[in-house]
Amino acid sequence: MNIQRDRTEDKQFVYLFSELDRVRDLVGSDWEEVRGVLGGKGANLSEMYSLGVPVPPGFVISTNACTDYLESESTFPKGLWEEISQVVTDVEKQAVKGFGDAGNPLLLSCRSGAKFSMPGMMDTVLNLGLNDTVAHGLLELSGDERFVYDLYRRLIQMFGCVVMGLPDDIFETVITHERERCGIQSDSEMGAEQWRLVTRRFKEIYRAHTSLEFPQDPHEQLRMAVAAVFNSWNGKRAIDYRNAARISHDLGTAVTIQAMVFGNMGDRSASGVAMSRNAASGEKDLEGDYLMNAQGEDVVAGIRHTRPLAELQDDLPDIHAQFVQIAERLEQHYRNVQDMEFTIEEGKLWLLQTRDAKRTAQAEVRIAVDMVEEGLITRVEAIQRVQPEQVDFFMHPQLDTAAVPDATPFARGLNVSPGAAVGVVAFDAAITERWATQEDRDVIMVRPETKPDDVHGMLAAKGVVTCRGGRTSHAALVARQFGRPAVVGIQGLSVDLEEREMHIGDVTVKEGEWISIDGTNGIVYLGQLPTLVPDLSSPHLLKLLTWADEIRELGVWTNADYPRDAERARAYGAEGIGLCRTEHMFFEADRLPIVQRMIMARDVGERNEAIGELLPLQRSDFAGLFRAMDGCPVTIRLIDPPLHEFLPSHDQLVNELADLKLQIQHFDTMAAIDAALDQIRVKQNYLEQVEELREENPMLGTRGVRLGILLDELTRMQVRAIFEAMIQCQRDGIDVQPQIMIPLVSHVNELKLQKETLESEVQLVLSENNNPEVSYQFGTMIEVPRAALTADEIGLVADFFSFGTNDLTQMTYGISRDDGERFLREYQTHGILKDNPFETLDWEGVGELMKIAADKGRAGNPDLHIGICGEHAGDPRSIQFCHELGLDYVSCSPFRVPIARLAAAHAALEKK
Amino acid sequence: MNIQRDRTEDKQFVYLFSELDRVRDLVGSDWEEVRGVLGGKGANLSEMYSLGVPVPPGFVISTNACTDYLESESTFPKGLWEEISQVVTDVEKQAVKGFGDAGNPLLLSCRSGAKFSMPGMMDTVLNLGLNDTVAHGLLELSGDERFVYDLYRRLIQMFGCVVMGLPDDIFETVITHERERCGIQSDSEMGAEQWRLVTRRFKEIYRAHTSLEFPQDPHEQLRMAVAAVFNSWNGKRAIDYRNAARISHDLGTAVTIQAMVFGNMGDRSASGVAMSRNAASGEKDLEGDYLMNAQGEDVVAGIRHTRPLAELQDDLPDIHAQFVQIAERLEQHYRNVQDMEFTIEEGKLWLLQTRDAKRTAQAEVRIAVDMVEEGLITRVEAIQRVQPEQVDFFMHPQLDTAAVPDATPFARGLNVSPGAAVGVVAFDAAITERWATQEDRDVIMVRPETKPDDVHGMLAAKGVVTCRGGRTSHAALVARQFGRPAVVGIQGLSVDLEEREMHIGDVTVKEGEWISIDGTNGIVYLGQLPTLVPDLSSPHLLKLLTWADEIRELGVWTNADYPRDAERARAYGAEGIGLCRTEHMFFEADRLPIVQRMIMARDVGERNEAIGELLPLQRSDFAGLFRAMDGCPVTIRLIDPPLHEFLPSHDQLVNELADLKLQIQHFDTMAAIDAALDQIRVKQNYLEQVEELREENPMLGTRGVRLGILLDELTRMQVRAIFEAMIQCQRDGIDVQPQIMIPLVSHVNELKLQKETLESEVQLVLSENNNPEVSYQFGTMIEVPRAALTADEIGLVADFFSFGTNDLTQMTYGISRDDGERFLREYQTHGILKDNPFETLDWEGVGELMKIAADKGRAGNPDLHIGICGEHAGDPRSIQFCHELGLDYVSCSPFRVPIARLAAAHAALEKK
Repeated sequence: MNIQRDRTEDKQFVYLFSELDRVRDLVGSDWEEVRGVLGGKGANLSEMYSLGVPVPPGFVISTNACTDYLESESTFPKGLWEEISQVVTDVEKQAVKGFGDAGNPLLLSCRSGAKFSMPGMMDTVLNLGLNDTVAHGLLELSGDERFVYDLYRRLIQMFGCVVMGLPDDIFETVITHERERCGIQSDSEMGAEQWRLVTRRFKEIYRAHTSLEFPQDPHEQLRMAVAAVFNSWNGKRAIDYRNAARISHDLGTAVTIQAMVFGNMGDRSASGVAMSRNAASGEKDLEGDYLMNAQGEDVVAGIRHTRPLAELQDDLPDIHAQFVQIAERLEQHYRNVQDMEFTIEEGKLWLLQTRDAKRTAQAEVRIAVDMVEEGLITRVEAIQRVQPEQVDFFMHPQLDTAAVPDATPFARGLNVSPGAAVGVVAFDAAITERWATQEDRDVIMVRPETKPDDVHGMLAAKGVVTCRGGRTSHAALVARQFGRPAVVGIQGLSVDLEEREMHIGDVTVKEGEWISIDGTNGIVYLGQLPTLVPDLSSPHLLKLLTWADEIRELGVWTNADYPRDAERARAYGAEGIGLCRTEHMFFEADRLPIVQRMIMARDVGERNEAIGELLPLQRSDFAGLFRAMDGCPVTIRLIDPPLHEFLPSHDQLVNELADLKLQIQHFDTMAAIDAALDQIRVKQNYLEQVEELREENPMLGTRGVRLGILLDELTRMQVRAIFEAMIQCQRDGIDVQPQIMIPLVSHVNELKLQKETLESEVQLVLSENNNPEVSYQFGTMIEVPRAALTADEIGLVADFFSFGTNDLTQMTYGISRDDGERFLREYQTHGILKDNPFETLDWEGVGELMKIAADKGRAGNPDLHIGICGEHAGDPRSIQFCHELGLDYVSCSPFRVPIARLAAAHAALEKK
Repeated sequence: MNIQRDRTEDKQFVYLFSELDRVRDLVGSDWEEVRGVLGGKGANLSEMYSLGVPVPPGFVISTNACTDYLESESTFPKGLWEEISQVVTDVEKQAVKGFGDAGNPLLLSCRSGAKFSMPGMMDTVLNLGLNDTVAHGLLELSGDERFVYDLYRRLIQMFGCVVMGLPDDIFETVITHERERCGIQSDSEMGAEQWRLVTRRFKEIYRAHTSLEFPQDPHEQLRMAVAAVFNSWNGKRAIDYRNAARISHDLGTAVTIQAMVFGNMGDRSASGVAMSRNAASGEKDLEGDYLMNAQGEDVVAGIRHTRPLAELQDDLPDIHAQFVQIAERLEQHYRNVQDMEFTIEEGKLWLLQTRDAKRTAQAEVRIAVDMVEEGLITRVEAIQRVQPEQVDFFMHPQLDTAAVPDATPFARGLNVSPGAAVGVVAFDAAITERWATQEDRDVIMVRPETKPDDVHGMLAAKGVVTCRGGRTSHAALVARQFGRPAVVGIQGLSVDLEEREMHIGDVTVKEGEWISIDGTNGIVYLGQLPTLVPDLSSPHLLKLLTWADEIRELGVWTNADYPRDAERARAYGAEGIGLCRTEHMFFEADRLPIVQRMIMARDVGERNEAIGELLPLQRSDFAGLFRAMDGCPVTIRLIDPPLHEFLPSHDQLVNELADLKLQIQHFDTMAAIDAALDQIRVKQNYLEQVEELREENPMLGTRGVRLGILLDELTRMQVRAIFEAMIQCQRDGIDVQPQIMIPLVSHVNELKLQKETLESEVQLVLSENNNPEVSYQFGTMIEVPRAALTADEIGLVADFFSFGTNDLTQMTYGISRDDGERFLREYQTHGILKDNPFETLDWEGVGELMKIAADKGRAGNPDLHIGICGEHAGDPRSIQFCHELGLDYVSCSPFRVPIARLAAAHAALEKK
C-alpha cells in the first residue's frame, strides 16, 4: 500500500516505510546514503517492506530532523510535527486503527535508529497511545486485563525512564516488592491484579518524581518520545559508545515509529530474536531465542530464560517455516548474516527489524570465507569485512586446562565470546575501571546482567561474567564486539552487592579474588589458571590471510630477538626480521655480569676483555636467528640503550647503602663489620659509576649510535659476531641475509663513521676466514627528526631506512612515553588529542616527517628500501599510512603479523 | 727587473715576485684568488714589489704545490724542483750573489704563507745556504766572525727544530749554559768566540739527535726546508689554530723564498716590526718596535726588550722618514692597517712583509669608523670589517678599582689586550685548560713568554700574563685576536716552574692563587677584584651600530625577566622583549615558599589559595617590565618548567633523610627525638611529592603548555596579572604592548584551549575594570618539531611565532643539552659535527624545520609575526640564517643586543 501525501514544504522529514523510493530520489541509490537519512533500522524496515516481508506499518523521522532539532537547541524544526501528524493518519489507515481511539486503539513504538547500529545505547518507548481511556477501551476489546495493564505499566516505566530520565530502580523496586508480596518468582507469573496495582503505583511515582501527571494525550506522548530519542543522541552513554566505536558525533539518529504488535497476547503469541548464522562460531545455522507470550524486550534483557528458536517448530510449525524462509531471503538480499527481531501476534508473524548481525571475530572470518564459497560475496568483500583487529582474537590466550587437571570449574554458562581471561573479580563497572586503569590489575567484571551503563567497565575488563542473559543479551553482544571473553546466563549464580561476593551452590567468591574464564566453552574456574596461546589453526582464517597476501603490497616482517620468536613469526607469515634488538641478549642472566664488568672496567684493556667474552655468546645468538630465518632478511640493530640500564638503579643503590650503614652500627665483630664495609665499597663503586652515567634525560642521551661511536670496540664485536655467525651458517647451507642497522642517527657523519668501522671489521673477519662471499645491507633507523629532515644525505650512505616511530613520536611530539601518560589521558579527555600518538601513528606530524624522509631518501637513492619497526607497525590505521607512504614493509611483533597481513590488504584496497 | 723564464710544463708552481701578472692571468684580478695561490705573504711581497717598495728579491712556491705534495704522500709534484732551481738562478742574478757560492754567498729565507694569516703557527727557516765552506767565505768577506757564527748557529737551530722536529730546549740550554759560563746577561753580549762554540755544539747535538750530519749542500737545505713548510700545514698547532679560527683545512700553504738581508750587520743595521695605526686603541699612530743590530725573530720572540719605533728617528732619521712614507703608501693601497716587518741592512731599508694588522676589537671599530671619515672606505665596508663577535669585547667587564681603593697593584706591563679578567694563576697551558674546562674554574695563564704550543691554554684562560714580549709579541697578537685580556712584558717578573710560583720584588704568588688583571691599563692586582660591566660608551661603536641599524632588516629584541635587564637591553638598542620567563620570578626567595605550597597543596582550595598569593607579586613584576619597555612589545611566556624544579632535589632529600635517621639514634631526650621525627616527616612529605612528580625525561614531560592546561588556575592567574598590570600602567599613560606566549605547544588544540582560557579570563578582568580598551597579541613558541610541521594549523590560532631553538635543537637532534656534552665534544674531535648545534644553529636540520614552520605558518596567516628567542638569537651565524628565513626579529640576552644589531646588518649585506 503506497499512500500519497500532500507536501507543502520542500523539505521532507518523515517517510512512510512505503516511501523508500522518495528517499532514493533524494540521495540516490547508494544504501549508505539511504541509511544516513533513515537510520539503519528505518532503512531496513522500509527495505523489508519493499521485499514483501511482513512488517507492522510505520514511518521514519529522518536523521536530518534530529540534527536540525539538536542544532536549534532542542526545538522541532518547522513543519516536522505537521508531517508526523499527517503520517500517523496514514498509519492509522494502514492499521485500520485509531491513535488514541479507545474503541479501536492503535499503539505505536518509538525507536531510535542511527546510521551505524548502536545496540542498547539509544532509547526506545513502546505502547505509545495508551492512556486511562484507551486502556479501558482495550480492556473491553481484548477482555484481557493482565495484558492491558502489563502494556500500560511498561509504557509508564519506559516513558518515565527514557523520556523523563527517571531511574529504572524506582520502578523495578515496585515490581520486586509486588512479586515478593505475592510470593511470585518471575514477571510472567504476575496477574491482572498485580499489574493494575503496579500501574497505579507507577503513575504515583511518575507524579512524585516529575511533579506532573503521566500525559494522557497520545500525541503529546508521541511528541515527547520523539524528542527524547533525539536528545538521547547526545547522552553520555551514546557519546561514550561512539568514541569507543569511532562513530562520528554529527550524524544524528533517525526515529522509527511503528504500529505495536504484541507477542504477549496469549499462547499463540511470542517474541524472539534470531541470527541467520551462528554468531559465535560462524556455522551456517539459523539460531535464536524466543519467549512465548512475551514482548521482545523480555527476550533481549535476558531476565527470563529464553528458548532456542528450533523449538518454535514444535509450538508453531507454520510460523517457523515462514520465518526460516524470510531469514534466508533477507540473508540473500543483504549478503550478510542477519540479526532479526520478530513478534508473533495471535498466530501472525511480524518482522520488527533486521540488521547485519554482530558476531565474534571467529564467526566473522568463517562467514566471510563461507559466503565467498557460496558465491554470495567476492574475496575482496570478504577481506574488507574482516577488520584486522578481529584477527587478534584468534591470538587470544586459551585456558591451559591440561596443565591443571584438577582445575575447579566454578560455574557453567553460555559461551558467548571466546578466549580466556584471568583476573580478579569486580562487581561493578566503576571498580572494574578503577582497578584496571589506575592499578593496572587484570579484572573480570561479574554482574547480574549488563546494561549500557556497564560498557565502560566491560571495556576495562579482561572478561565478563553475568548471571542472566542469552546469546543475544547486551552482555553477549558487547563482549563479542570488543573481543572480551564472556560467559553469560549462569543458572544458579547470584551476586550479593552488599557483601561484595558471589555464590553458586555452597561456593563463595569475594570481590578481589581471582577467577579464570573460558569464553570458548562457557566455563568459569576458581583461581588463576595458566593460559595458552593458540596457533592460527582456523582453516578459514588461513584462507582469508592467503587471499589478503595476494592483494597487499606491503611486506610484513617481524620484530624478534630470539630464534623462538622468529620461528613463531615465520609460522604466522612474517617474511623477514625487521628488528632484532641485540641488547635484549645482553640482559640475559648469564651475560649481565659480563656486561656490567665491561661498563665498570677501569681501563680499555679490562673493557675489551669483557667485550671479548660477549663475542661467542652474540655469535651463537645471531647464528640461531639466521637458521630460523633461512632465506629471509634479518635486520640486526647494534646496541641501543644507555649503559646505565645494565646497572642496578640509582635509588636502589642509595637505599641499600643507607641500610648497610645503619646495620653496621649494630655489628659487634670485626669480621662482620669488615664484610659490611666490603659490601659498602662494592655498592659505592656501583653508585659512582651509575652517577657518572646518570643522565637528566636518558632518552636524549648517550645511546644508540652515540654509544656505538664512543665504544668502538663494542660495535666491532657485534659486527664480528654477525659476520662470523653468517660465515658459519653459510657453510651449513643456510641462506643468510643480514641487514645491519644503526640506531638513533641524527647526522649523516655518524652513519659514515659507523660504516667505516663496520667495513674495516668485516674485511678483517673475511680475511681471517678465507674470504668467503658475503652480501649484506647497511642501513639506519630513522627515529630522530633531524635524520628525517636530512634523509637525502643519509640515504646516500644507507641501503635501507627503518622508521623507529616510537622514538620519532617522542621527539616529534616532545613527549616522553614514560612520563606522558599523566597529561595524555587528560588530553584525550579534553579532546585535545583524538588518539594516543604512541598507539596510532600521528599522520599529520610524525607522518609528515616520515613523508619528508621517504621522499628525500628516495630522491637521493632510488633503491632505498624503507620499512617501519616501531610499535605502530602492528596498528592497522598506522599500516594504512605506511602503505600510502609507499613503504616496502612493516615489521611488528610476531603476534601482530597476521593482523598486519590483513591490514596491509585493507590498505591496498582502500587506496584503490 | 722582470726576468722571462722558459716553461716546459703547463702547470706553473713557482712565481718570482715580479711575476704577479702571470698569476693574475691565471686566476683573474680578484685579490682573494691571488692570495689563494701565493698565500698572503707571497702575494703581498709581490704586490709590494709592484708598488716599488724595497723588497729583497725572491719567489713564491704556490699553494697548489703544497696541496699536490700533501695529496701525493709528501713527494714533490713533478717539475716543482726544476722550477725552484731555475728561479733560484733568477734570484742569484737579481741579488748578484750565488747560492752556495763561498766567494759571494746568497742566503735565503724560507717562510710559510697561507691564504689567511696564521701568525707564528707555520714554520720559518732563515739563513739557508750557509755551510762550513760558505761560512768561511762569508767570514772572509765580512771580517765579522760573531755575525757569521750567529747566522750559522741560528740556521742549525731553526733547521733542527723546524725541519728535523727537534725540541727547541736542547739548543737553548747550550746558549744559556754558555751565557752563564761567560757571565753574560743577554744574547746580544755574546761574542764571536761564544757563537763559534755554540755552532760547534749545535752541530754535535744535530748529529746526536738525528744520526745525520747537518746538511752541507745548500740546495738540499732548501729542498728539506720547503718540504718542512709543506708538512707543517698538517701539524697539530696549525690544525688547532685553523679549527679555532674556522679556516678550511684544504687550502694548503704557499712558501716564500727570499734573499736574506741582515739586521745584525752592525750599528747601522736593525730589525723591526710596525703597525700603521695603534693596534690596541685604533688611534692613528704609526707604532712599532725595533732592535738595533738584530734579526727580526729577536723582535717578535720578545726575548730582548725592544725599542719603540719613534726612537729610530734618532738612530737613523732618513730611514725613519722613508719608512713613514712607505707605511702611509701601503695603508692607502691596502685600505687597511698594515702590520709590517722591516730590516735595515747597513743603512738600507728593506720591507720583509706587510699584512693587514691584527688588532683589538676596540681598534677594529675605531679604525673602521675613522677610515670611513678619512674617505678610505665606505660605511658598508666599515660594517663588514667589524665582526659581530668583536662587539662582545666592548661588553667585557672592567676591574672596579674604585670599589677597592686599597687594591694592590702587583705588577705593571704592556696593555696589549683590553678588559678585565679575574682568576687563579696557572703556569702552563695544560693546567690552564684542565682547570678551566674540567673544573670550570676561572684561570689566568702566566708564562715567561708564549709560543704556539700555548694557544690552547690561552683560549681556555680568562686572561694572559707574560714576563717578556712586546705589543706585537705572540702573546699580544693571540690575546687580542681571541679577546683575552692580557698584560705582557712585565719587567722583573719571574716564573719558577719548579716551585710553581711567580715573583716580583719580594711578592710571591703561588699557582692556584687569585689575581686580577686589567688589560686596558696593563696592571696586575693580587686577589679577586670586583668587576664592572661598561656601558657602550665608545662613540665609534655607537656610530657603527647606528650605520648597522640603517642597513639591517631584522628587528633586535631581548630576553629579559626583570626591569633592570629590560632597561639595560633598551640602552643597548633592544626594540622589544621577545621573551620574559615568568618562572624566573617564581624562583625569587620571597616567592619560592608560596610556589612550593602551591605544589604541595592537598586539594584544589589550598592550591588556589597559594596561586592567589602569587597574583599581586606577578602583577607588580609585569608592571615593572611594562614601564621599562614603554612603547615596545613585551612578550610574556606563561609558566614553562616542570613543577619539580621548584622543590628540593630528590637526591638531596634522600641524603638528608638518611642523615636524620642516623642522627636520631644518638639523641637521648624525647624532645630531640620528637623534633627530628617532625623533620623526617616534613622531608618525607617533600620526597613523596618529588617522587610523584619525578620524570624519566623531564625535558619531554609535564611542562610548558601541558602544565598550563593541567593547572588552569595558574594560567588564569598569570593572565590576570598581565592584564591587571597593563590596565594599571595604561592609566599612568604607559604604552603597553603585551604579547602572551604559550610554550611547548605540539598540537594546535593545546593552543586553542589556552586561547579560550585566556580570552575568558581577559573578559573577566576587563569587566571588573570598567572595560578599558586593551590590545594584545597571542602566540606560541615553536620549539617542538611537531609544532613546526603543523605550523599551518597553528598559525591560524596565533598572532606570532617565536622559535625556541634550544628545545627545538634538543628534540630535532634528539640530544639533551644537559647530557650531550659527553659525546658532543667527542663528535667535534672526530669531525662528525663541525659546530656544537647548541651554539650555532644547525641550518640543515633544525633550520629546515624552521623553514617549514615559517613557510607553512605564513601560508595560513600572512600577518604572522615570527621571531626567535633561543640562545642562537645572539649568535651571528644563526642570525644570518634568521635573516635568510625572513624572520621579523631576533631576541637575545641584553649583552648580545649590540652584537645582534651588527650581525643583522651583516646578514642583510651578505644576502645582497
